Amino acid sequence: AAHGARKMEDYGRFLALLASSLLVGFVSVILSLVWVFHYREGLSWDGSPAEFNWHPVLIITGFVFIQGIAIIVYRLPWTWKCSKLLMKFIHAGLNTIAMILAIVSMVAVFDFHNAKNIPNMYSLHSWIGLTAVIFYSLQLFLGFAVFLLPFAPVRLRVALMPIHVYSGLTIFATVIATALMGITEKLIFALKNPAYSASPPEATLVNCLGLLLVIFGSLILWMASRPHWKRPPAENAKILRPIAATPEGTEVESTMTNSSNADKSDLRSNTEAARKQNIKFDEAGQRSTM
Amino acid sequence: AAHGARKMEDYGRFLALLASSLLVGFVSVILSLVWVFHYREGLSWDGSPAEFNWHPVLIITGFVFIQGIAIIVYRLPWTWKCSKLLMKFIHAGLNTIAMILAIVSMVAVFDFHNAKNIPNMYSLHSWIGLTAVIFYSLQLFLGFAVFLLPFAPVRLRVALMPIHVYSGLTIFATVIATALMGITEKLIFALKNPAYSASPPEATLVNCLGLLLVIFGSLILWMASRPHWKRPPAENAKILRPIAATPEGTEVESTMTNSSNADKSDLRSNTEAARKQNIKFDEAGQRSTM
Repeated sequence: AAHGARKMEDYGRFLALLASSLLVGFVSVILSLVWVFHYREGLSWDGSPAEFNWHPVLIITGFVFIQGIAIIVYRLPWTWKCSKLLMKFIHAGLNTIAMILAIVSMVAVFDFHNAKNIPNMYSLHSWIGLTAVIFYSLQLFLGFAVFLLPFAPVRLRVALMPIHVYSGLTIFATVIATALMGITEKLIFALKNPAYSASPPEATLVNCLGLLLVIFGSLILWMASRPHWKRPPAENAKILRPIAATPEGTEVESTMTNSSNADKSDLRSNTEAARKQNIKFDEAGQRSTM
Repeated sequence: AAHGARKMEDYGRFLALLASSLLVGFVSVILSLVWVFHYREGLSWDGSPAEFNWHPVLIITGFVFIQGIAIIVYRLPWTWKCSKLLMKFIHAGLNTIAMILAIVSMVAVFDFHNAKNIPNMYSLHSWIGLTAVIFYSLQLFLGFAVFLLPFAPVRLRVALMPIHVYSGLTIFATVIATALMGITEKLIFALKNPAYSASPPEATLVNCLGLLLVIFGSLILWMASRPHWKRPPAENAKILRPIAATPEGTEVESTMTNSSNADKSDLRSNTEAARKQNIKFDEAGQRSTM
């Protein structure tokens, strides 16, 4: 009973963090809209500053908020009864949407720059931002090829999963850092009379937006890096064979058999023990999927 | 023999990454010096722009490079024969140096701003930077009180260690993001005729410096987050008792006894097994020190 109470408390803590990050992410999107509609020229697609304004709105909506949700989608406890394959599609789908929005938001800037004869790609913001988009696309492509398509051998999946997780979190943090640089640039360029240094209301609002992005990123990284909030392994707790890999089906776990525990039904009746055992494997870098 | 060869290969990979990060960090410090001496006004302490220049130099040297080294100091294999207490002192000492340099670098900016009647604390860079310094100081103070002083009960150490690790890495990433904003600000403000957008050599050099900071941060975060590169537990592989905590000595491990494995000498003769067992405890969040 004490164990059950502790689990419920931990579940409550997860929900509180999830609600906080959804709120912070949602308020960030709202603030970006307030920024462009109340203080700037709104949104349009005509080479004017209103076209540029798609850039912050789509980056914050797609490349920050949706990417953040994509990162923690496996952590949502009510999805643990869904198939892993479905969750992989949702993870890949959200990341695809984020990538498309990021690319459209870049096109908006290039279009605006070209219409106004402003040089492209001179700032540190543009260098790191473009690098992040390229790595993000590569990560999505590789993730799709290795973890979603049924062709990659288990060994490759096992070897690449820690790199996939690390790259994902590092790219996410880099995207937020790039957004902060972009906010800094835009406030310096756009605020004249009163200048940024005079702290007009717009500067205060957008500084708060920047702070919210850091808080959002920190919440997502905390949720993503707690090992006990990971999606539990498949219900029959199958564990990777320490045998040379052969071509596998779409679901690694569904094609795995447990080499050390012969009686599956026994394991199935004791999911807590199964989860612990799988955690052990997982944390030794032996499990192929998050 | 195959296992030994794999361990050596892994050791070689760690050394290559360590050498890369030292090189990238070192080159970053050099580039910051080239920036202020070749392109800017050099260094002095007289309210002139040369006083401001201490800011980037000390932030990159202390708050990025030295903090990065402090983070991975437990990972260096040749320190594993040193006492954990000594390593804690080195970790805390390097972080103290980094904090002092960060504070001095902030004083340089305030001093320069006041001499030139430039407002303080209006930019997102200043908001997030000051927040990072405050959290960093808090982290250092709490780390000292809980993990170095001998008063904290083991339970508290166990509960706070994952938070300490997460906060440390998140603050480090935030510091690098803040440095990128600072670079962006300075290049926009300082480069006139040719402007930043005309990509003069100074802009290219400092953009490269910004890229190197991102690479440095990524390398440190990779090394810090690989579980198999952690410092092995104390040589007698003592493991936390699952018993209510009592006041402890300075070294958690030295006051711990192994509740499940009675024969210590047996464990001592088989450090690999001991390490594996300890990793299991560690990853369940049960070990108190990194």
